[in-house]
Amino acid sequence: MSQRLVIFDTTLRDGEQSPGASMTREEKLRVARQLERMRVDVIEAGFAAASPGDFDAIHAIAEAIKDSTVCSLARANENDIRRAGEAIRPAASGRIHTFIATSPIHMEKKLRMSPDQVVEAAVRAVKLAREYTDDVEFSAEDAVRSDFDFLVRIFDAVIQAGATTINVPDTVGYSIPEVWGERMRTLIERVPGADKVVWSTHCHNDLGMAVANSLAAVLAGARQVECTINGLGERAGNASLEEVVMAVKTRSDLFPVETRIDTTQIVPASKLISQITGYPVQPNKAIVGANAFAHESGIHQDGVLKHRETYEIMRAQDVGWAQNKLVLGKHSGRNAFKTRLAELGIELAGDEAVNAAFSRFKELADKKHEIFDEDLQALASDEQVLAGQEHYKLVYSRVHSETGEPPVAELTFLVAGVEERAMSTGSGPVDASFRAIESVAASGAELLLYSVNAITTGTDAQGEVTVRLAKNGRVVNGAGADTDIVIASAKAYLNALNKLHSSFERVNPQGDV
Amino acid sequence: MSQRLVIFDTTLRDGEQSPGASMTREEKLRVARQLERMRVDVIEAGFAAASPGDFDAIHAIAEAIKDSTVCSLARANENDIRRAGEAIRPAASGRIHTFIATSPIHMEKKLRMSPDQVVEAAVRAVKLAREYTDDVEFSAEDAVRSDFDFLVRIFDAVIQAGATTINVPDTVGYSIPEVWGERMRTLIERVPGADKVVWSTHCHNDLGMAVANSLAAVLAGARQVECTINGLGERAGNASLEEVVMAVKTRSDLFPVETRIDTTQIVPASKLISQITGYPVQPNKAIVGANAFAHESGIHQDGVLKHRETYEIMRAQDVGWAQNKLVLGKHSGRNAFKTRLAELGIELAGDEAVNAAFSRFKELADKKHEIFDEDLQALASDEQVLAGQEHYKLVYSRVHSETGEPPVAELTFLVAGVEERAMSTGSGPVDASFRAIESVAASGAELLLYSVNAITTGTDAQGEVTVRLAKNGRVVNGAGADTDIVIASAKAYLNALNKLHSSFERVNPQGDV
Repeated sequence: MSQRLVIFDTTLRDGEQSPGASMTREEKLRVARQLERMRVDVIEAGFAAASPGDFDAIHAIAEAIKDSTVCSLARANENDIRRAGEAIRPAASGRIHTFIATSPIHMEKKLRMSPDQVVEAAVRAVKLAREYTDDVEFSAEDAVRSDFDFLVRIFDAVIQAGATTINVPDTVGYSIPEVWGERMRTLIERVPGADKVVWSTHCHNDLGMAVANSLAAVLAGARQVECTINGLGERAGNASLEEVVMAVKTRSDLFPVETRIDTTQIVPASKLISQITGYPVQPNKAIVGANAFAHESGIHQDGVLKHRETYEIMRAQDVGWAQNKLVLGKHSGRNAFKTRLAELGIELAGDEAVNAAFSRFKELADKKHEIFDEDLQALASDEQVLAGQEHYKLVYSRVHSETGEPPVAELTFLVAGVEERAMSTGSGPVDASFRAIESVAASGAELLLYSVNAITTGTDAQGEVTVRLAKNGRVVNGAGADTDIVIASAKAYLNALNKLHSSFERVNPQGDV
Repeated sequence: MSQRLVIFDTTLRDGEQSPGASMTREEKLRVARQLERMRVDVIEAGFAAASPGDFDAIHAIAEAIKDSTVCSLARANENDIRRAGEAIRPAASGRIHTFIATSPIHMEKKLRMSPDQVVEAAVRAVKLAREYTDDVEFSAEDAVRSDFDFLVRIFDAVIQAGATTINVPDTVGYSIPEVWGERMRTLIERVPGADKVVWSTHCHNDLGMAVANSLAAVLAGARQVECTINGLGERAGNASLEEVVMAVKTRSDLFPVETRIDTTQIVPASKLISQITGYPVQPNKAIVGANAFAHESGIHQDGVLKHRETYEIMRAQDVGWAQNKLVLGKHSGRNAFKTRLAELGIELAGDEAVNAAFSRFKELADKKHEIFDEDLQALASDEQVLAGQEHYKLVYSRVHSETGEPPVAELTFLVAGVEERAMSTGSGPVDASFRAIESVAASGAELLLYSVNAITTGTDAQGEVTVRLAKNGRVVNGAGADTDIVIASAKAYLNALNKLHSSFERVNPQGDV
């Protein structure tokens, strides 16, 4: 019989460590709800001790999520464990994930602790964590460079102390499947009490092998994989949830495990993460790329059909690809609008937010004949972001560009409720708009990234613009959607300024499992 | 001693089968030159029998490339082999890559041939190919579903007939490293004469494991990997050249092979392919993603530095990431411009093209203070595309948009040398521009994709727009770059129309190795 493979999603913790991918509390909640809908087993919601914002987000997620375990990361010290324990307290099922470095160089240089002290700290942390929950995970940071016998010793000790999941990370993403599987197999063989816990792996993708390494660990006995939607994460990211899940499902002839994931929620989750973080998915990305199920040559199409005779089928609809559905038009009423939002899992806080979103919907329907689910997602996203901290808000925009003359933008926007007018030329209408905004806001922020995605197809598609700004070491993404790309750009820039302006101070999480 | 791992790049053949990634002859030449500069061993330049356009492109590449082997794909029939042989005739070193299906279902249903007939056709094809070149590769299509003993038999026969490379493809991308490595190992053990040939693997990425499968094959004895830049290719694409190359280089402790690739040419190659095909690279893509070497948390940065103590270093500059260099400004002269183009490996055909590019450069320098290498690449790209078939050409553009009013675009463009004026409203200035163009051109094409990449950073960045149009089953990508995103969009749309209009008729290549 197949064993359960636990899917541990760390999009909200490790994924969020991507430059500029920080999410607000509301954004994290939306993602968590989608992860729950997808039936992820464990949601690592953040790192409670990293910042008050992280603590609040984890607490809110622990309150909202009923079907998935909610987890917080914590270093192996009393403060971190207590913060994590308090953050997950409201959870129907809560986990604390504690870690400590186990390699000689880290123990000596970073922790300034002897191996004995490290084992002691790990044991103490696990015991303390067990006072908050029966579900405690322990990770050996830098396991790859740790002494093997020491790993066996510390894993034995934390299992005796009450750890229920043991995680072995490839923090730097440099392993290969043959080696990684062998390491997992040997650990499981040699650690006393190995059969009492769930073995887990957490792989990074620097050489493009995070998924293959994770699966090699599964073949070697791991029963939890830590992963993120779209493979989001620092540098080349983490193992992709969608690839891990579909590999074990499609090749059930090779993997003696099954997940409880509702795979039809994979593509919606991918789009949501991409939209919130501003990180696009390349077309030739496996499973969730726009081309993943598209074929150029007829012969291949045929090949895939035939291929289905051999393996279990992987069809586009199995992972949530569907034709764009025409859901609403300009004559749709407020109730139809609300119902569809609910079906999409979008919850707006209070009647005021719904009314505001509905009036934006009407404006959009005037400009665009067909309103797709993606349009509603963008609109709701806009609304949720704006509902938060709207220091800057666009009121009016006029741009004019003509061959041979510098483009001009004239904008009116609210700054803390006061209307300001600004005008500038620039190298293009977007540049002119940004310069106009800066002539009043004077943020001094540096523009790191400007990207546009058409979120629906056709010439009247909405453009969704992401603007990434950096100031004093903080990096924020602003998003804006409009059928007018210049207006979407101005909205995105103001949204990014709002985030920079907000008091949502975020300390970089320092977990590196 | 390390053995040579042959890097066989099929960006121009299998990669080009991505929807809309078709390249013109000139574009293919530019890519081939970059591949040669990167010191790829074998460039699969196309499928000579697929179309006259493919034939011409292979022939031109065979004439231009001196340092890499130039290869054409060919089915195992006389016409295909002769076309391939003629196409590669000018090459300093030329290869014919022939294939035939070996699975029962394909032999019966598609080929309507008995196993004996298939072996006979393969042998005949290899012998004929050897009349053109001593370098002949044979692939067993659908090897994964073929009878193992039959594979041994046909490989034995083609080796006796003179094949020098034997390729084992995972056409559908559903294997996993453990299984794929084992298959390669067993084949090499069981095929008589296995030691006389180079064993090769060709893996697709449907479950995200193309690179890991390729590397498992290498550990099992394969000494050629077929791959593409950025992992381009149908569906989820092929194995990424950059990941394969950097994995064996970085983990030389595990892989007993070395490549002759100049890894500092990897990022330039990635950018060139992305620019020409309109396929973006996601930020969290290994090696060539914008974030691949960027770190959010300080601790990780530290970790990587320490990590270098253990493994061979993988540094951003090793794969060609460099700080943007300010190369030219508005006071730079024609010679400095020409010199820099040459350094970048950009060759413009004739003085006229150089003059046109230089005057565009001056225009750009007026709008944008700092001109980076990427700007020059975009500009040259523009020039090369336009030099070809310029049925439509933008002359003048005026757009106006204002809150509360529909945006208006007024364009003047040449149609076969005759000036046409067009005006339209739209849901945004880009939409209005496209509608204005269509009001005259009346192409009836469907807009499949609209995407924007800022090719340099800063608010006066150039926007590079890709427009993908479909008409009567043909799919083309148009590209346009400008500091004004609306103008870049109009240029891209006209460029796509030029491609649709051109007589460059392309039959879809039907190779599915």
